[in-house]
Amino acid sequence: MPAVTPRTFKGTRDFLPDTMVARSELLGRIRETFELFGFAPMETPALEYLETLSGKYGDEGEKLIYRLAYKGGNVLALRYDLTIPLARVAAQNPNLMKPFKRYQIQPVWRADRPQIKQGRFREFVQCDADTVGTESPVADAEILAMTVEILQQLDLGSFTVRLNHRHVLAGLVEAAGFPEGSLQGACRGLDKWDKVGRDGVREELLAAGFGQDPVDRLLGLVDEPGTGPRELLEKLKVPLDTTRLGGGGIRALEEIYGALDAFGVPVERVRFWPSLARGLDYYTGPIFESFSDELKHVGSLTGGGRYDDLIGIFGDQKIPATGTTIGIERILSVLEQSGRLEKKASRTQVFVPVFDEESKESACRLAGLLRRAGFRTEVSYDPQKLKRQFARADRMGYSLAVIQGPEERKEGVVSIKDLGSGEQAKIAADELVSAVAQRLSARPT
Amino acid sequence: MPAVTPRTFKGTRDFLPDTMVARSELLGRIRETFELFGFAPMETPALEYLETLSGKYGDEGEKLIYRLAYKGGNVLALRYDLTIPLARVAAQNPNLMKPFKRYQIQPVWRADRPQIKQGRFREFVQCDADTVGTESPVADAEILAMTVEILQQLDLGSFTVRLNHRHVLAGLVEAAGFPEGSLQGACRGLDKWDKVGRDGVREELLAAGFGQDPVDRLLGLVDEPGTGPRELLEKLKVPLDTTRLGGGGIRALEEIYGALDAFGVPVERVRFWPSLARGLDYYTGPIFESFSDELKHVGSLTGGGRYDDLIGIFGDQKIPATGTTIGIERILSVLEQSGRLEKKASRTQVFVPVFDEESKESACRLAGLLRRAGFRTEVSYDPQKLKRQFARADRMGYSLAVIQGPEERKEGVVSIKDLGSGEQAKIAADELVSAVAQRLSARPT
Repeated sequence: MPAVTPRTFKGTRDFLPDTMVARSELLGRIRETFELFGFAPMETPALEYLETLSGKYGDEGEKLIYRLAYKGGNVLALRYDLTIPLARVAAQNPNLMKPFKRYQIQPVWRADRPQIKQGRFREFVQCDADTVGTESPVADAEILAMTVEILQQLDLGSFTVRLNHRHVLAGLVEAAGFPEGSLQGACRGLDKWDKVGRDGVREELLAAGFGQDPVDRLLGLVDEPGTGPRELLEKLKVPLDTTRLGGGGIRALEEIYGALDAFGVPVERVRFWPSLARGLDYYTGPIFESFSDELKHVGSLTGGGRYDDLIGIFGDQKIPATGTTIGIERILSVLEQSGRLEKKASRTQVFVPVFDEESKESACRLAGLLRRAGFRTEVSYDPQKLKRQFARADRMGYSLAVIQGPEERKEGVVSIKDLGSGEQAKIAADELVSAVAQRLSARPT
Repeated sequence: MPAVTPRTFKGTRDFLPDTMVARSELLGRIRETFELFGFAPMETPALEYLETLSGKYGDEGEKLIYRLAYKGGNVLALRYDLTIPLARVAAQNPNLMKPFKRYQIQPVWRADRPQIKQGRFREFVQCDADTVGTESPVADAEILAMTVEILQQLDLGSFTVRLNHRHVLAGLVEAAGFPEGSLQGACRGLDKWDKVGRDGVREELLAAGFGQDPVDRLLGLVDEPGTGPRELLEKLKVPLDTTRLGGGGIRALEEIYGALDAFGVPVERVRFWPSLARGLDYYTGPIFESFSDELKHVGSLTGGGRYDDLIGIFGDQKIPATGTTIGIERILSVLEQSGRLEKKASRTQVFVPVFDEESKESACRLAGLLRRAGFRTEVSYDPQKLKRQFARADRMGYSLAVIQGPEERKEGVVSIKDLGSGEQAKIAADELVSAVAQRLSARPT
């Protein structure tokens, strides 16, 4: 066999334990919050028929679909996102009880140019929760309340969820006097507010050929985004009420704010953000994104909205839906950059070293006892140098060591050592489990 | 866009919540037991360079590797198992602290002819735990102890773990007087014992061209498998001690039994099984498999062994390793066939219906309160017919309903209904959390 250089394909990653432990704790907490809000787990295959995915992601997306070399030609592809598979599932299972609330945490693949530093990968995990089969704004509010709960849970510092509505955008563009059909173009400009600021947006819009008057009127209406969650909503009511869609958009947002209030979401967490434009061809109602307040440059941590025309794409029925994706890569990035990510090489709590050949058996006995009591335990296999065994325990971040060397054997006791403080105590063997429990519960986890 | 029939590729599956809830609980319990034994999580990409996988799975396996249609030809492939990626990781990270104990739960892909009824799929989850970098039999025993703990945990009825050693097999074949180089052929016959019985194995071996004398001697040595875990080991000591490898194999198994005893594994769980042969080209020491005692036909539930020559394949260093795969599809199959699999459409505990337009807000308030208290809660979005709302709660398997209709509103109370027994009680609103906690803890989960 010719020598093969062991390497990963660019844009894909190995997650060794020292990163995977934190990742899986993060995903576990997100999963728990999804379930707290009544969402149930679902998974779909990585392999989809190409025809299922094709034509759904625009011209750019189409090029990024990984195709398989399969007999009979290009008929198979790798999952590109979790939304089209959800639409396929909904069409394949018309009797699925609605509202259907599912979450899905699985990798997706994109044949993109990877930009590792910016967090753009060819294989990455998406983490979606969607409510399918209801037009109720309470469902939108529930997604927002859950987003807030997740970001709060993850303890990543101060954050803001931004909320807007496609109809508000349409109303703003109409009220500002833009010509028919300029919604998309105007939004493309507005969406850059974060990057280029108000003046930059103005330049963008002028450069796109829009007149100075409507542009200035639009900027006047939109104002500096984020000034008070509801004042702005109130302020826009009058100008938007005369537009075709704007008034309805404002009322829908008011209903969402009412439900958020009932759900107990702190009012400052979700801010009305009239310049938020987010993928207009896809969303049909409220749209939302969230950002770290301290690390805005990382980009949106979550993003979603209502998309009433997509889930029915494989059938002959319109199926309304709303949902969000939780961007775990960016969340991990915020946690890491703000020094909040605790890297651990394992979740093991107790370490049982082996002193000498004679203590091999007693080490296994102790490990068995500790494991049956529910403590995550590592036992050495061989009487290597003790120093080396403890160096490992240190690097792995174990909390306690339980030792039975020749001395302890003679006395019929066991030593417990706190690997953080170095404190050590001898205890009777039959008190081991309670002594370990007590010491572990006294430590920060 | 032409109409597309929504369908899954044959041999792949959607896991809707009613199967996914049970699957993820199962995987969660396995994950916990892996960690209890000191294994840490790891993940590798689905996409591997074809050259990494190629030439590692034999002629048959080679054909089953899914290749990607990628610029520059067939250079990318989908992960075929979790062991070769582990070998690649070990080579790419030579400083990985040994012993390296990792578990990995991820899908793999095989371009096989799917046999859905026999549980053979093109995309399926593998669930592996391996200890890399030690030759100690204690590490083998630990894998066995963990296997026993997992199968006990999962409550799938009576089971047996079978244990053998490649060197014992070599010794048996030598002691029986088979000619040099017949190990592989003899083992192929022995491995069919379960399917065809002792007489069937005899026929197989004779048909394979082995002489009557060595065949009968081999069957006499192997005996009926499973007769007492250690008596047979004792019995084989004498004839195997004169062979080149057999005596060492017996001693290694004795050491494993000693460690199992120290770990506290009940002796009847792991039986010496001299006819167990399992993939001889791959394993180098102890080998193990486990079966349900009641549902043997399902096949092996777990399988593994020591493979000291594989992990070093990408480097110039020999890296010993031992491990097991937990066959979650077959375990689910045993649980289902024995009526032990509880199908649940969700893990939601509490349901808050909406009586009328006026109670929409109070329903959200109650749901918010319950969720903040940690109860997995579903709230209706609309005042649909109550009967319909409760029919949903019933199908979804929720435990309790918390209701605040016009009557309760007037009295300033809340009703709690046990959706199992139908019992209903009115309580003060500020007692809701403790009342729900009490009722949920009184129910079987």
